[in-house]
Amino acid sequence: MKFVVIGGDAAGMSAASRARRLLPDLEVTVLEMTEDVSYSACGMPYNIADPDRDIDDLVVRRADVFRQKQQIDLRTGHRADVIDPRKRTVSGHGPHGEPFTLAYDKLLIATGAVPVMPQVPGHDLPGVLGLKSLADGRRIKQFLAGPAVKRVVIMGMGYIALEMCEALRGRGIAVDMVKPRARFLPAMASDLAQVVHDELTANGVGLHLGRTVERIEETPDGLVVVCNGLRLEADMVLSAMGVLPSSTLAKEAGLDLGPADAVAVDGYLRTSDAHIYAAGDCADAIHVVTGQKTWIPLALRANRAGWAVADNVCGNAVALDGVAGTGVFKVFGLEVARTGLTVDESRSAGFDPVSARIQTRSRAHAHPGAGKIWVEMVGDRASGRLLGVQMVGTEGVAHRVNAPAVALHGQMAVARFAQSDLAYAPPFGPTWDPLLVAANQLLKQL
Amino acid sequence: MKFVVIGGDAAGMSAASRARRLLPDLEVTVLEMTEDVSYSACGMPYNIADPDRDIDDLVVRRADVFRQKQQIDLRTGHRADVIDPRKRTVSGHGPHGEPFTLAYDKLLIATGAVPVMPQVPGHDLPGVLGLKSLADGRRIKQFLAGPAVKRVVIMGMGYIALEMCEALRGRGIAVDMVKPRARFLPAMASDLAQVVHDELTANGVGLHLGRTVERIEETPDGLVVVCNGLRLEADMVLSAMGVLPSSTLAKEAGLDLGPADAVAVDGYLRTSDAHIYAAGDCADAIHVVTGQKTWIPLALRANRAGWAVADNVCGNAVALDGVAGTGVFKVFGLEVARTGLTVDESRSAGFDPVSARIQTRSRAHAHPGAGKIWVEMVGDRASGRLLGVQMVGTEGVAHRVNAPAVALHGQMAVARFAQSDLAYAPPFGPTWDPLLVAANQLLKQL
Repeated sequence: MKFVVIGGDAAGMSAASRARRLLPDLEVTVLEMTEDVSYSACGMPYNIADPDRDIDDLVVRRADVFRQKQQIDLRTGHRADVIDPRKRTVSGHGPHGEPFTLAYDKLLIATGAVPVMPQVPGHDLPGVLGLKSLADGRRIKQFLAGPAVKRVVIMGMGYIALEMCEALRGRGIAVDMVKPRARFLPAMASDLAQVVHDELTANGVGLHLGRTVERIEETPDGLVVVCNGLRLEADMVLSAMGVLPSSTLAKEAGLDLGPADAVAVDGYLRTSDAHIYAAGDCADAIHVVTGQKTWIPLALRANRAGWAVADNVCGNAVALDGVAGTGVFKVFGLEVARTGLTVDESRSAGFDPVSARIQTRSRAHAHPGAGKIWVEMVGDRASGRLLGVQMVGTEGVAHRVNAPAVALHGQMAVARFAQSDLAYAPPFGPTWDPLLVAANQLLKQL
Repeated sequence: MKFVVIGGDAAGMSAASRARRLLPDLEVTVLEMTEDVSYSACGMPYNIADPDRDIDDLVVRRADVFRQKQQIDLRTGHRADVIDPRKRTVSGHGPHGEPFTLAYDKLLIATGAVPVMPQVPGHDLPGVLGLKSLADGRRIKQFLAGPAVKRVVIMGMGYIALEMCEALRGRGIAVDMVKPRARFLPAMASDLAQVVHDELTANGVGLHLGRTVERIEETPDGLVVVCNGLRLEADMVLSAMGVLPSSTLAKEAGLDLGPADAVAVDGYLRTSDAHIYAAGDCADAIHVVTGQKTWIPLALRANRAGWAVADNVCGNAVALDGVAGTGVFKVFGLEVARTGLTVDESRSAGFDPVSARIQTRSRAHAHPGAGKIWVEMVGDRASGRLLGVQMVGTEGVAHRVNAPAVALHGQMAVARFAQSDLAYAPPFGPTWDPLLVAANQLLKQL
């Protein structure tokens, strides 16, 4: 049996490796258009923060290990151009433009996501860089290693943009950030977003909301990012305006698409064609809170879905429950996390949301070194169900968010969650965990 | 209506305060035998660690606040000696030995726990101290502030004993610990307990397992703790051999007792007498994993149960689900946590336990500063249910344990838990959270 995988990052290589282990006789071919496979894209900002670390440290497993140890036919520099579902073939071209056509019994589309690039004049100037692939990271590090970069403008204010901001500030570089929308961190309740906003300004970051980039100009001194009513000088401009599912191949093959034009899959990661799977940032998923399709590109889901595809290809039927939209990032002295839905997202999904917002200490009464923790918890008035949690704090946020994430998977009511026997010791929190304080407050309103 | 509370710490004062808020006309009387109410007993080791901090910093709310602001008739120095359930009275004596008898409509027994004290010769020598009440903490601090204490022997190796060990080592004091049983930290899987054992010895602590204290002797140089085959010199001896429920009053009143002779209560915290409640460390609880009665004295449960009693006394019927036995402590560079059952406990409870033990990194691949995390996860072969988790690690353990705790409340199967959408970012863990790695391993065996 021939298993062909398009895309050699998290989902694709997880699927290829696991399928090889499960069925040693399987012919496994992976087509990867770049030269890099299996690397930790999420680690790029942290690697870029440190001039002494090699970007290739982020490679989790080298291509030759897949080729030699696992006997996977891994073809880097190979771009898939056309899928023919009737003939069950993939056609494309290799590193020197040479065409190829491969037959498959089962195909996995794991093409990931493509960065949103601003199509404004000057977007292709030297010094205007994106951050998606390892090659992008390599270019950024090379640029930073060159003639002194003192000022960077980041277009975008999402997780990656904020992590890059911290990385650059840590290298002593002045950072301005611009985004067209007026609201900072819309994925968080506004009061919590304000806490993050204040942390950035306290760290000397210029935050320019409601500014649309109109063009980027080259000057004798460097670059100028021209927005509505604002000109920002820069030695480098970083584009981190989010990503979209890379689903053109799937769309052109006639496969069904879901939210954000991600490739539509069922719980078994099957597309609308019985022989084609999709997994990773290019595919959609069921949201465990809404029960509806959603598109949330996250590394864990990509790995998990890759494994599940391997199981299904190899005859072990494995269905995934879905995602809760759990995410966390660090920015300067803050941990920022969320799971499930915000109030706005809950309303859009048809719930009648009620929320409680609390602020408490990260350690017990009288325990030294405590910081602040803010929690927003959202419940559904009609059913009493927990719908989501957002948290910000100086410590104790990143792993705490996993408890409500599990509760969301269990469709737990706020009243049940409030009864949870959570851990307590003075260095780690107050007797009533911040999540329980929030749940108790929310219960009063439900 | 008259609501009388015996015991003025977590459960008792939580109940009194909340009952007062819920029913302003209620007559609320609290009998507390010591002079201290509402303090953070769990904070004592950390307070003792710092010579410059006052032990009274641990008081959460002062007695006069309860008396004046909340108009609670709080009687410190008042010991309850007899409960007469037929007459609905409590009799006892006040600070000068004066007798009193109080009538009640509803009574709460919140007498807490009593420390296990070794009844060996010399246990009452000066310099042999317990650690349960705030007065004990005061005595220890006074003793440490006196003539140089260079060597301490701690009897016991439980959570509190280990926290005290760290506090004393932090003050430059040599510490030896003894316990009669041969097994270190039986509440943890043995490999994980070994990690903690090694951390203690690496910090210069003498661990003497399988040593029964036979007597404590006074010498011109200080004290000697004499065990079977071992003599340990000390300037101070600390007894931290665990606690037992303080249930004598309840027993003598004819109330039913549960495990460990804790006062037996139902979900509404009602004892076998319809007018008497019990809450806190003196009372038992349902274990959410076994569905059976258990006795696990923990601060959060005490507070929660106190609130529930207030609700029930005031006519808002509130039942508690039970406890998962979630606990965490810090010792030197390690966080140690557990929830649910160990393999041994699972077997005792009638399950057919299977366990997986993994070791992984606390941060992502290639992220600097990562430490180690060990996880043991236990599932039931027959039902596939998650039964418990134990974790040890240099970081990221304390709050991570809350996710499986919530899963235990939801009676979740390991297969469902393994699908949880847990948070990932490079500073906080690998893409596959250590809990998911453990769950995936466990699934292979289930």
